[in-house]
Amino acid sequence: MTPSSNLKELGITLPTPAAPVGSYVPAIRTGNYAMCSGQLAFKNGKLQHTGKVPETVSQEDAMKGAEIAAINGIAAIAQAAGGIDNIAQIVRVCVYVGSNEGFTAQPTVANGASDILAKIFGDKGRHARAAVGVAELPLGAAVEVEILAEIAAPQT
Amino acid sequence: MTPSSNLKELGITLPTPAAPVGSYVPAIRTGNYAMCSGQLAFKNGKLQHTGKVPETVSQEDAMKGAEIAAINGIAAIAQAAGGIDNIAQIVRVCVYVGSNEGFTAQPTVANGASDILAKIFGDKGRHARAAVGVAELPLGAAVEVEILAEIAAPQT
Amino acid sequence: MTPSSNLKELGITLPTPAAPVGSYVPAIRTGNYAMCSGQLAFKNGKLQHTGKVPETVSQEDAMKGAEIAAINGIAAIAQAAGGIDNIAQIVRVCVYVGSNEGFTAQPTVANGASDILAKIFGDKGRHARAAVGVAELPLGAAVEVEILAEIAAPQT
Repeated sequence: MTPSSNLKELGITLPTPAAPVGSYVPAIRTGNYAMCSGQLAFKNGKLQHTGKVPETVSQEDAMKGAEIAAINGIAAIAQAAGGIDNIAQIVRVCVYVGSNEGFTAQPTVANGASDILAKIFGDKGRHARAAVGVAELPLGAAVEVEILAEIAAPQT
Repeated sequence: MTPSSNLKELGITLPTPAAPVGSYVPAIRTGNYAMCSGQLAFKNGKLQHTGKVPETVSQEDAMKGAEIAAINGIAAIAQAAGGIDNIAQIVRVCVYVGSNEGFTAQPTVANGASDILAKIFGDKGRHARAAVGVAELPLGAAVEVEILAEIAAPQT
Repeated sequence: MTPSSNLKELGITLPTPAAPVGSYVPAIRTGNYAMCSGQLAFKNGKLQHTGKVPETVSQEDAMKGAEIAAINGIAAIAQAAGGIDNIAQIVRVCVYVGSNEGFTAQPTVANGASDILAKIFGDKGRHARAAVGVAELPLGAAVEVEILAEIAAPQT
């Protein structure tokens, strides 16, 4: 099974990464690696799940948001890498969770990202991970996800 | 145009990186990469813009702080890389913004860092970026900036 | 002196990294690098120092927590690298500190991690570092530590 066939089986279509609007890019290739910018849970152009966890956004919705953000990150990395099947290994995932006072289940929220990566990449999806609860995220997002991946194809 | 000639045209003189005071260093070279420690908006030895955004530090001042911190990061990386013109590509920038409740324009603040990198490095300054709002930063700084860069020169 | 002989002299026994429980791993090897997942101050299976700094956890205890978390991170990286003496250089350390309003001595807390790395690795322990104050950490931890290291041994 390849990542692209897993995607098909999971019924996931990678979104087209948003065109860069500033001095930064959705993802960058460097040597044998590619990494994405911090991704929010945009779906069909609309940011899902705004507000902090768990008072405004439930833990379950935040997990879904982490999954959506991770898929967006993979889409960006795949574009930088010339296709998702060129991703050899997910290396690092950092999940920032906009957290209300006293919310400490950031790892559960982060599983929304980690689990979808495992479904798409199998063993090659198992990564080092940091989950952190933060004060505020861009546009009021509940989660932001960064991904670093090793790429198999030569850099063009 | 080289990064050093761009600096001259922009009227920017890279500061001398502070000597390391503890067990960590302003920047480190590793393989084809160099990265700086989290940089604050020190200018002429004085930390600019302390407090959170936007109640104590305006969004505009925080953008300026992000620019100053980015310049300090580039100075540290340039020293580790044997000169700014050895920087082949800015790869990743992470901007932490000390944020008051409800402030969600971290990307605008982070543009202060991203835009100066674009001015100095042109296309090679376009990077992956994360912007995150955090509770507190060292010394009460409004912004902290980390930079990872690809280096062209052989490691000595 | 090697890192392993330094450990012996310091009276430190590296803990066995926790078996991965989810879709992520304690540490990952990639090319000439290895990095650990965000580490908490677990000691003998028990999380030390829960709560924010300095109201619930003192700055001194948070420093100790940063040291414990760093040791756990080194244990995980050593396992991924085939032994601690294969670690050629500590490259980056990120220390997240669960911070009460107004606490800005994150670098002092982070020194708990940086200083033990210097004791274990000598000059090869000097790293780039970010210290950030965050709203909430997993399980109510006071500190979370990420480490990136360069590895000398060939990847297996």
